[in-house]
Amino acid sequence: MDAALQQIIDEIHPVDGTWIKKAKERTARLVMPPRALGKLHDMGEKLCGIQQTLNPRTGKKAVLVMAGDHGVVKEGVNPFPQEITGEMVRTFLKQGAGINAIAGCVGADVWVADLGVIPDLMALSLSHPERLLIRKIRKGTDNLARGPAMSHGDAIRSILTGFELAETLFKKETDILATGDMGIGNTTPSAAIGMVITGKTAKEMVGRGTGVDDQGLIQKRKVVQMGIEINRPDPKDGVDVLAKVGGFEIGGIAGCILAGAVSRRPVVIDGFISTAGALIAHALCPSVTDYLFAGHCSAEQGHRLMLAHLGLDPILNLNMRLGEGTGAALAMGILDGAVRVFRDVLTFEQADVTEKRP
Amino acid sequence: MDAALQQIIDEIHPVDGTWIKKAKERTARLVMPPRALGKLHDMGEKLCGIQQTLNPRTGKKAVLVMAGDHGVVKEGVNPFPQEITGEMVRTFLKQGAGINAIAGCVGADVWVADLGVIPDLMALSLSHPERLLIRKIRKGTDNLARGPAMSHGDAIRSILTGFELAETLFKKETDILATGDMGIGNTTPSAAIGMVITGKTAKEMVGRGTGVDDQGLIQKRKVVQMGIEINRPDPKDGVDVLAKVGGFEIGGIAGCILAGAVSRRPVVIDGFISTAGALIAHALCPSVTDYLFAGHCSAEQGHRLMLAHLGLDPILNLNMRLGEGTGAALAMGILDGAVRVFRDVLTFEQADVTEKRP
Repeated sequence: MDAALQQIIDEIHPVDGTWIKKAKERTARLVMPPRALGKLHDMGEKLCGIQQTLNPRTGKKAVLVMAGDHGVVKEGVNPFPQEITGEMVRTFLKQGAGINAIAGCVGADVWVADLGVIPDLMALSLSHPERLLIRKIRKGTDNLARGPAMSHGDAIRSILTGFELAETLFKKETDILATGDMGIGNTTPSAAIGMVITGKTAKEMVGRGTGVDDQGLIQKRKVVQMGIEINRPDPKDGVDVLAKVGGFEIGGIAGCILAGAVSRRPVVIDGFISTAGALIAHALCPSVTDYLFAGHCSAEQGHRLMLAHLGLDPILNLNMRLGEGTGAALAMGILDGAVRVFRDVLTFEQADVTEKRP
Repeated sequence: MDAALQQIIDEIHPVDGTWIKKAKERTARLVMPPRALGKLHDMGEKLCGIQQTLNPRTGKKAVLVMAGDHGVVKEGVNPFPQEITGEMVRTFLKQGAGINAIAGCVGADVWVADLGVIPDLMALSLSHPERLLIRKIRKGTDNLARGPAMSHGDAIRSILTGFELAETLFKKETDILATGDMGIGNTTPSAAIGMVITGKTAKEMVGRGTGVDDQGLIQKRKVVQMGIEINRPDPKDGVDVLAKVGGFEIGGIAGCILAGAVSRRPVVIDGFISTAGALIAHALCPSVTDYLFAGHCSAEQGHRLMLAHLGLDPILNLNMRLGEGTGAALAMGILDGAVRVFRDVLTFEQADVTEKRP
């Protein structure tokens, strides 16, 4: 194991149950029937545990959209042209994509990181270039169906890059971070990671991604299967899985998740690709799930299997499948509600309301 | 049928599909794969249809919490004392309840209406009394297990009162209204309404409400069954069902729903009690569902059966069971997201992003 990565992992500890216990005691005193707001209480208490406080905060929000290109698109796994990755990065900076609309709604800042997009994005005419963080590991991964997607060193570099980007946001007072992704073809490496780490079959884990037809789905399953057979990633070694069948943005997302756990800040993961990143982080350090919220359950079929492996219950279930961090950002609004309920609802005593039948 | 109520019903028309069709055409041009944000698109388009615009609005939000007491509590259907109804109204005005926390989070104003609480609330020491609308039909319903809960005239008056309150809010530019309820014992009349209108059994429709134990549940089912057998409400006549086994706040909620449909403004219903109100409104005028959103699916077991009867798909599913409008208010934040996506995301042309494989 790389020394820098090992040091990060060593700094991560499971969430101490003391604060969650204290938080549950407060919930029990709120002026409502016991736990009448269901999962909102669970969320509020989990935030208390992560932040070690009875005054949890989700006020300052950021979305970090990690972008990268994928060599495996050569295998015809996706009907969309690869240049869309860079074009969408440009759209994020123009504030014109789905993630911008939703982030605006919940009051989150959007940052975009280029972990491995093929074109030179700074050569494009960009609005708000200060929101773009160029951290190219390489210009696209290699074709995972024919060999490893990236070197072992580049896998570690992508994780450490994501870690540093997220750590910087946390140092700038970010209370809560949503992960996002952009990368034409990236449901293919994500499905491969999902298969390797959860042990599910291609039929269970490989779905249509964006607009793949029946014929395309057969091809995509074959490609993922081939990538796993050729590369033989070790399911117990997150870096090996990432290197052999992953992507730079997926490694970056894994790094964000590690940073949340080190900084004791909540990270909200988005859909299929972000959760593949979470599987990598979890393989490196299982305690990361203590610091994670699953923003939503994607329409991509394998996503719920990934979430089950992580033991995470998705906040929203709206048949979304865009990525970009949209499901995670939307769920941050629900977490705001959980915080408000936890902090602002009076106790029975404060409200002077009869608690029980006299 | 009462003339005033008939006039309201005559003013309600199904949502004209033209605007939804235009809205779907815009969604198809957004810079993302087709309908990649799933139900968010459906919500945005439904709002366009209701408001007859391609510029839907959810900015000015109100929650109207209807309160009333219930004679049926004499039958031991609820372990909590009846005075909590009034005490919780006082807590709403003090901004200290669950609904205040969540409404604050989504930027909604909370109004409370006394449709039939037993105590004289103005005699209590109240914060923000201007937020309390006293419209008492009577001081609590009669015991529905022994005869009709209210007279036919009072049933109509409760509906018309809710209608007028909501209409006033819509005239003050409210873009979207969430319904809420407070009334110790009100899952009992709601379950009775649910059974009569959907035709489900007591076992299916009558749940634990707030903290009823096994023995209490048997008693509650017996009481609901008895109320239906004694009163024999006509499932096709919403006013008759409300009068015989309903509650004043449930009638008020039905009135709010009619007002939304007349004013062409979206109404977000909350859980079991609000949806019982929606069943009454729907029995009077089936087109009201065109104007309704179901905020969430309650943990109360019969709720999903009510929603299925109305053909409404709940936005959230967070195991909540508080009432007060909490689920509806929280869902208004998701509807904000739907509006932002619909209005603010660029089209492929505007973003200059490649739409298809060249």
